[in-house]
Amino acid sequence: MTADPADAVLTFGEALLKLTLPAAQRLESMSALGAECAGSELNVAAALRALGRPAAWASALPPGPLGDWASAHVRALDVRDLSLERPGRLGTFYLEDHHPPRPSRALYDRQGTAFQTLDATDLDPAWLRGCAALHVSGISLSLGPGPRALALALMEQARAQGVRVSFDVNHRRLLLPAADAADTYGSAVRHADLIFVAQRDLGLLGGLPGLRALNPHALIVVTRGAQGSEAHRPGGGVVVQEGVIAAGPGRIGRGDAFAGGFLHAWLGGAGAAGALRFASACAALKTTLPGDQLRASEAEVWAVLEGGEHGEPRR
Amino acid sequence: MTADPADAVLTFGEALLKLTLPAAQRLESMSALGAECAGSELNVAAALRALGRPAAWASALPPGPLGDWASAHVRALDVRDLSLERPGRLGTFYLEDHHPPRPSRALYDRQGTAFQTLDATDLDPAWLRGCAALHVSGISLSLGPGPRALALALMEQARAQGVRVSFDVNHRRLLLPAADAADTYGSAVRHADLIFVAQRDLGLLGGLPGLRALNPHALIVVTRGAQGSEAHRPGGGVVVQEGVIAAGPGRIGRGDAFAGGFLHAWLGGAGAAGALRFASACAALKTTLPGDQLRASEAEVWAVLEGGEHGEPRR
Amino acid sequence: MTADPADAVLTFGEALLKLTLPAAQRLESMSALGAECAGSELNVAAALRALGRPAAWASALPPGPLGDWASAHVRALDVRDLSLERPGRLGTFYLEDHHPPRPSRALYDRQGTAFQTLDATDLDPAWLRGCAALHVSGISLSLGPGPRALALALMEQARAQGVRVSFDVNHRRLLLPAADAADTYGSAVRHADLIFVAQRDLGLLGGLPGLRALNPHALIVVTRGAQGSEAHRPGGGVVVQEGVIAAGPGRIGRGDAFAGGFLHAWLGGAGAAGALRFASACAALKTTLPGDQLRASEAEVWAVLEGGEHGEPRR
Amino acid sequence: MTADPADAVLTFGEALLKLTLPAAQRLESMSALGAECAGSELNVAAALRALGRPAAWASALPPGPLGDWASAHVRALDVRDLSLERPGRLGTFYLEDHHPPRPSRALYDRQGTAFQTLDATDLDPAWLRGCAALHVSGISLSLGPGPRALALALMEQARAQGVRVSFDVNHRRLLLPAADAADTYGSAVRHADLIFVAQRDLGLLGGLPGLRALNPHALIVVTRGAQGSEAHRPGGGVVVQEGVIAAGPGRIGRGDAFAGGFLHAWLGGAGAAGALRFASACAALKTTLPGDQLRASEAEVWAVLEGGEHGEPRR
Amino acid sequence: MTADPADAVLTFGEALLKLTLPAAQRLESMSALGAECAGSELNVAAALRALGRPAAWASALPPGPLGDWASAHVRALDVRDLSLERPGRLGTFYLEDHHPPRPSRALYDRQGTAFQTLDATDLDPAWLRGCAALHVSGISLSLGPGPRALALALMEQARAQGVRVSFDVNHRRLLLPAADAADTYGSAVRHADLIFVAQRDLGLLGGLPGLRALNPHALIVVTRGAQGSEAHRPGGGVVVQEGVIAAGPGRIGRGDAFAGGFLHAWLGGAGAAGALRFASACAALKTTLPGDQLRASEAEVWAVLEGGEHGEPRR
Amino acid sequence: MTADPADAVLTFGEALLKLTLPAAQRLESMSALGAECAGSELNVAAALRALGRPAAWASALPPGPLGDWASAHVRALDVRDLSLERPGRLGTFYLEDHHPPRPSRALYDRQGTAFQTLDATDLDPAWLRGCAALHVSGISLSLGPGPRALALALMEQARAQGVRVSFDVNHRRLLLPAADAADTYGSAVRHADLIFVAQRDLGLLGGLPGLRALNPHALIVVTRGAQGSEAHRPGGGVVVQEGVIAAGPGRIGRGDAFAGGFLHAWLGGAGAAGALRFASACAALKTTLPGDQLRASEAEVWAVLEGGEHGEPRR
Repeated sequence: MTADPADAVLTFGEALLKLTLPAAQRLESMSALGAECAGSELNVAAALRALGRPAAWASALPPGPLGDWASAHVRALDVRDLSLERPGRLGTFYLEDHHPPRPSRALYDRQGTAFQTLDATDLDPAWLRGCAALHVSGISLSLGPGPRALALALMEQARAQGVRVSFDVNHRRLLLPAADAADTYGSAVRHADLIFVAQRDLGLLGGLPGLRALNPHALIVVTRGAQGSEAHRPGGGVVVQEGVIAAGPGRIGRGDAFAGGFLHAWLGGAGAAGALRFASACAALKTTLPGDQLRASEAEVWAVLEGGEHGEPRR
Repeated sequence: MTADPADAVLTFGEALLKLTLPAAQRLESMSALGAECAGSELNVAAALRALGRPAAWASALPPGPLGDWASAHVRALDVRDLSLERPGRLGTFYLEDHHPPRPSRALYDRQGTAFQTLDATDLDPAWLRGCAALHVSGISLSLGPGPRALALALMEQARAQGVRVSFDVNHRRLLLPAADAADTYGSAVRHADLIFVAQRDLGLLGGLPGLRALNPHALIVVTRGAQGSEAHRPGGGVVVQEGVIAAGPGRIGRGDAFAGGFLHAWLGGAGAAGALRFASACAALKTTLPGDQLRASEAEVWAVLEGGEHGEPRR
Repeated sequence: MTADPADAVLTFGEALLKLTLPAAQRLESMSALGAECAGSELNVAAALRALGRPAAWASALPPGPLGDWASAHVRALDVRDLSLERPGRLGTFYLEDHHPPRPSRALYDRQGTAFQTLDATDLDPAWLRGCAALHVSGISLSLGPGPRALALALMEQARAQGVRVSFDVNHRRLLLPAADAADTYGSAVRHADLIFVAQRDLGLLGGLPGLRALNPHALIVVTRGAQGSEAHRPGGGVVVQEGVIAAGPGRIGRGDAFAGGFLHAWLGGAGAAGALRFASACAALKTTLPGDQLRASEAEVWAVLEGGEHGEPRR
Repeated sequence: MTADPADAVLTFGEALLKLTLPAAQRLESMSALGAECAGSELNVAAALRALGRPAAWASALPPGPLGDWASAHVRALDVRDLSLERPGRLGTFYLEDHHPPRPSRALYDRQGTAFQTLDATDLDPAWLRGCAALHVSGISLSLGPGPRALALALMEQARAQGVRVSFDVNHRRLLLPAADAADTYGSAVRHADLIFVAQRDLGLLGGLPGLRALNPHALIVVTRGAQGSEAHRPGGGVVVQEGVIAAGPGRIGRGDAFAGGFLHAWLGGAGAAGALRFASACAALKTTLPGDQLRASEAEVWAVLEGGEHGEPRR
Repeated sequence: MTADPADAVLTFGEALLKLTLPAAQRLESMSALGAECAGSELNVAAALRALGRPAAWASALPPGPLGDWASAHVRALDVRDLSLERPGRLGTFYLEDHHPPRPSRALYDRQGTAFQTLDATDLDPAWLRGCAALHVSGISLSLGPGPRALALALMEQARAQGVRVSFDVNHRRLLLPAADAADTYGSAVRHADLIFVAQRDLGLLGGLPGLRALNPHALIVVTRGAQGSEAHRPGGGVVVQEGVIAAGPGRIGRGDAFAGGFLHAWLGGAGAAGALRFASACAALKTTLPGDQLRASEAEVWAVLEGGEHGEPRR
Repeated sequence: MTADPADAVLTFGEALLKLTLPAAQRLESMSALGAECAGSELNVAAALRALGRPAAWASALPPGPLGDWASAHVRALDVRDLSLERPGRLGTFYLEDHHPPRPSRALYDRQGTAFQTLDATDLDPAWLRGCAALHVSGISLSLGPGPRALALALMEQARAQGVRVSFDVNHRRLLLPAADAADTYGSAVRHADLIFVAQRDLGLLGGLPGLRALNPHALIVVTRGAQGSEAHRPGGGVVVQEGVIAAGPGRIGRGDAFAGGFLHAWLGGAGAAGALRFASACAALKTTLPGDQLRASEAEVWAVLEGGEHGEPRR
């Protein structure tokens, strides 16, 4: 992988211990749990790294075996670990993965985490060195005033240094009331050069017109899951992309793979249409995998876009 | 859960040790088996209890660790265990779960079970105390003269006390020859206020006209799996309900979840149309789960009926 | 099981989700966890129930699927669930089980639990109805002023009603500094008719003389793990019991099985020597089992005490 | 099973240790592997035996535990093991099984295997005794000059003795460059009475006209996976068969099940149309199973062809 | 393996489906079971075959998938399957494997099995063709008059043809009351050339003097588990052998491995001392393995007897 | 961890895919395999890193998913990966882990590996930058002339730069005939400042006198497994260390943990006695863990040496 190290991307967010149940099982009858390392912004960094681009991750982890466990996971992903050691818990969440019509559900247990102790004074100016972009999501803004302040300070530093700023609204209903969304996400929306927002969250920010009013200059990418995606250019142009049909256990993390894929292509010079197309294939490839992180090389993404036979194994 | 304890339902039937193979595996190559506690009438009681209604289960279990295992399972389901301790085996069956076009198959091993030693003298008048309904299935009638006599005696007592009687034909080809069906199920059909019968079993009882001739006063519910269901009112009216689309590992027990859901809604005052609709969502939710018992609260059933997004986890 | 229902025992304490690693594995490399329901006082109740004595458990559980999971576990143990629904977390802890010389270790994650919201106003006078004894441990006293107040109020009510009071010091170094032990446990020690204390914790309370000074009238049982146990009578007599040699995965919960076994025999009329002997066999049988709860009938305990061949299976 | 022992089929090919990953997992994150015994020609022999026909398998296995492992597998399949003990490795391959759009992939590790030491001097004239047919695939021809020479010598002996010769082109891109296909497979094509070839491999041999030019007298069966199959008679007639819809984990080995099913029906007297139909059901039944070998009796194949309800288990 | 085919051993007995629990687990909490094929006489045949001697097994199996499963197991062991297809169940038993002081226990469920339908008229004179010895155990005699009659008829035929007769008393307390032992086993004892009896079962037959009185000419081997074994010659000489120290999961089947090892050495010309020594190493090697059957070559047995380093793996 | 980066250690050797069987299982009946990344010199680097010292590893890995898998493993260990990408296989070996008296055994499958293509021209002068020591084992010398030449060239460079050279004879009987040992290991022995040799391998090099004659100046550490170890000073002094008693699944890799621990202490300034003692505790802690690599902090090693209670978990 030969991407220019100066084209690295820094992401900032919390890592969690995700406790998963066997497919179709409910917490009420749990007897065994899978343990995975998850976190939207870590997932984005992992996707970028898998695609061949240097990636770093700023965060906080508690001392002790659970923090060490998370660090080893980050190393195995080949993402540069810039996390600080802070007192507190490693947040956890439980995930039930269900077949329709039963909705899958997450049960968060993330009070008092090490990440929530972070604030703007923790900003290390060296974090952005050599970076072409910074990526932050609304989850970090929802986790308390300290993390929010640090996220915004990072975004400001990035803008000051000419580093591009990517923001994924990524609203979590269980973390933030809808009524607080506009206030919580507003400043970040204004800082961003690139905004990802799910169709179902647009209303929180006044719809596309409201979002555009907040930020007249950003490229706004609206995602609609399997229904595809759109990129709205500052000047008003729209590019529409169909979803790439995919199956498999990996619904969680599709959005992060999409964001990582988009950033990789966009930073590499692709236009909105090309980046949407590349991102759609990344989301499809994520769907095929367990865990929260995309594992796919750039060549594998292109192979999907170029089509070919899927029914028969390569042998 | 605040259902009136006087609205309890009693079910009567056998519990079995269900030995399951990993999906798509055949008995010829088995090396590991799952152990589940199964039984149509126990499943109905479990569905009712999950939905918030008190439920009790009359049966027989052998002394020793296998009987204790079944009892602990019943307690965990929060169903009141009225089973008697009787000598004999705990019946077992093996279940292969296959993809089409290979048919799934059950291999019964239920000779000489404790349940088969029951007869009408075992009837405990206290069983029906506080009950609004009694539910029995054709399986109990197929397991020998003793259980059949006890089932019919229970039905008679129920009728005498004004407790509503529910009967699910639930014909098992491997337990009873088709030629014996009419004789075996006839008295129960006559006793019932509510009859469930699968479309494919209607012919055993002379079709709908034959069934209606046997019992002019009952509400007759005909189930057709994914194709939906119908309720035939004594006076001749018919209500038709589409099936609720569902996926997952839980095909076994759908009929019991349907019956449990119907009973719950019907006893709670719903009409035939409302009860069919509620029951269809229960069957769909059962389909999403492993094991034989429905686990869903009344609120979860309503959420299915009210629709909503299933593709994204709640988080 | 025919124990007189009036001879029930009530225990009071917290239940936790215990997340276990495969034997010899470290948290740093975890990928799968076992989920068990644990809690010292629940374990004691479970041991008593397995031995044939009615047992109830007062506690608090959060609403939602994790609380429901714990309740189903309590029901399966056939222990009467008197827990209150309270907001908060279900506490968890991680357990690494190691071979020597690597010490096993627990990592607690129990801040902000539902149990910690309890206080003396939660006392329900009906809890002790029909009880011959109340059992509390030092863990409940270490979890905050609210639970401590409730535990002491329960002990006072028990004394007032002639219900015997059992207290297991059960000091947890990771929950309470040694310097706070005497203050924290002192009142409970004074209330007790029966005190369990590990040899290694005696120093926290001034050794045996200090303990006796605090409570001149109690029967004091000192446990020394595989090295056996002693009962110190108020009048000064000492009974010594050797440990029963045992192997297996179940080191956790041995002390609770011991306490449960002692209480069962003592309440049944055994003297200190007989109760120690019975308790030692219970601890040995616990050692043979996974999970935290003893599963053994009274007959199985006697079989151990009467010796016999262990090398060959019973067949 | 009462097939005439004189109607046996001999197959010749290599057996491999197939190391499988859990569905959807990638080799980069492997931590556990399934171990299966695989090999195209062994699979054909297994299919024939399951259908009730005697089958034998000529091959080479290394001495030691891996060879013994393979032999036990062959015995369990009830296939007569004619393999020779030869120095070398037991070949292995890794298989990732993916959801679309991620292609499944095989990673071969089969250099220096015992099978590759075979040559024409290893031919044992007794192998074909009592055989009605010989089956060989292009894989054996691709594994080196020695195995190729032995395969051709076997085919010549078969022709000389009036034993029918079946050849499945079964081209493996990872084993043989496309440019070498015509040379490598040519002689075998000329020897065959029955030729199986995948639509996607036809081009390697000059398309159907090229193939027919090489062998004017053979029955040529062209397979197109789920899209069905065709049989081209020497005289020019064509029979077309639709694919039988199937689901499940068993895509690998479908072609071998098809070939085995075709051979069984064809040797039993079915015409091209009947054999194609029978073979299609065999391929469908294979799809439903894990592992590489068809497990289905002749009666189970007929049951698929006769249709019937699949949604409900037989019980 | 080059043993003379004329030196085969025939064994006669029932095969069962053994359902095993994870080590230390109890049936009361079972959720998964291992499925193994077990049976004392099948185990003896398997040991003999593993040691290089041809072995055959006469029995009865039910038609259908469970019988097919057992047959495939017998083939994989490379034992010649002479079992007859008979109606009935495949017997099962559950096995809990415990650490001391909790006794392991078997729970039999073997009423109405196919094996129990056998009687003397089923004897096929061809069974003993080419055999040097016949081996039967007391289990077959305990399973009903039919199997007992067939076992005795086989023994008589063997004596008539000069085939040596081996009888292992192998008393099962759960199958036969002690009071019936002498009657049940007497005739078999009288027929035998070689008798195996556990020390704990000697009393059932009047001790060693009683046994010798029943059969003055046989070689009597008394086994005492880890405490070793003795061979009592007809003329009165005694050979004593220490047990070979061993660890591992394979306590079940040690006696069968011992009998198989003794028979192999004895038929191969070893005297009582040599056969005892060889058998002791076989029992030790069995102990190291899961499952009921010995897997060890003659060379591996000799390696144990010659000692050597065990602490380090061979690498 | 704050060790001076200039105190790093470089190790050189091959990494393998170790395919493990469940404890006590034999390859003949394998159905599932564990996949671990193993290699003596990688293990030593991992031990050093776990103890807080920077460590790097020079090697060769093949391109593709198996090489990527190994690289991710190295990163997770936090060892600096200096491996070169070279064509060839990733070597594998199978490991059976047995209870006594059955010997554990390794089955190597490492022909044609990427590592074996290395030769002296691959030496990168930058590898030793910042290193205080180089560690090589006899395995690398046994794998062919290329790796041997590169190992010796590295040792020479180290000596030239004042980097200390550590050599572990680590003879593998299955890789190198005893007769070739002296020739193969001689030059490396002469280059070393520190030599590890197992007691059982001393004879290959003329015993301790022979070894001393080859290298008069090195510190020679003789290991005797559980029996302890000795350090022989150049001047003739001997330090003797008892083994630290340990249990668990981790026999493989104990020697590497010992070497890593010794190097860490020795480089940190400990004398021979202190380093032996520290190393013994490392070997003991390795024994308690699955996998091939030590996971223990320096503090955990000291805790073992200072003793303490092991029977009770820390809680």
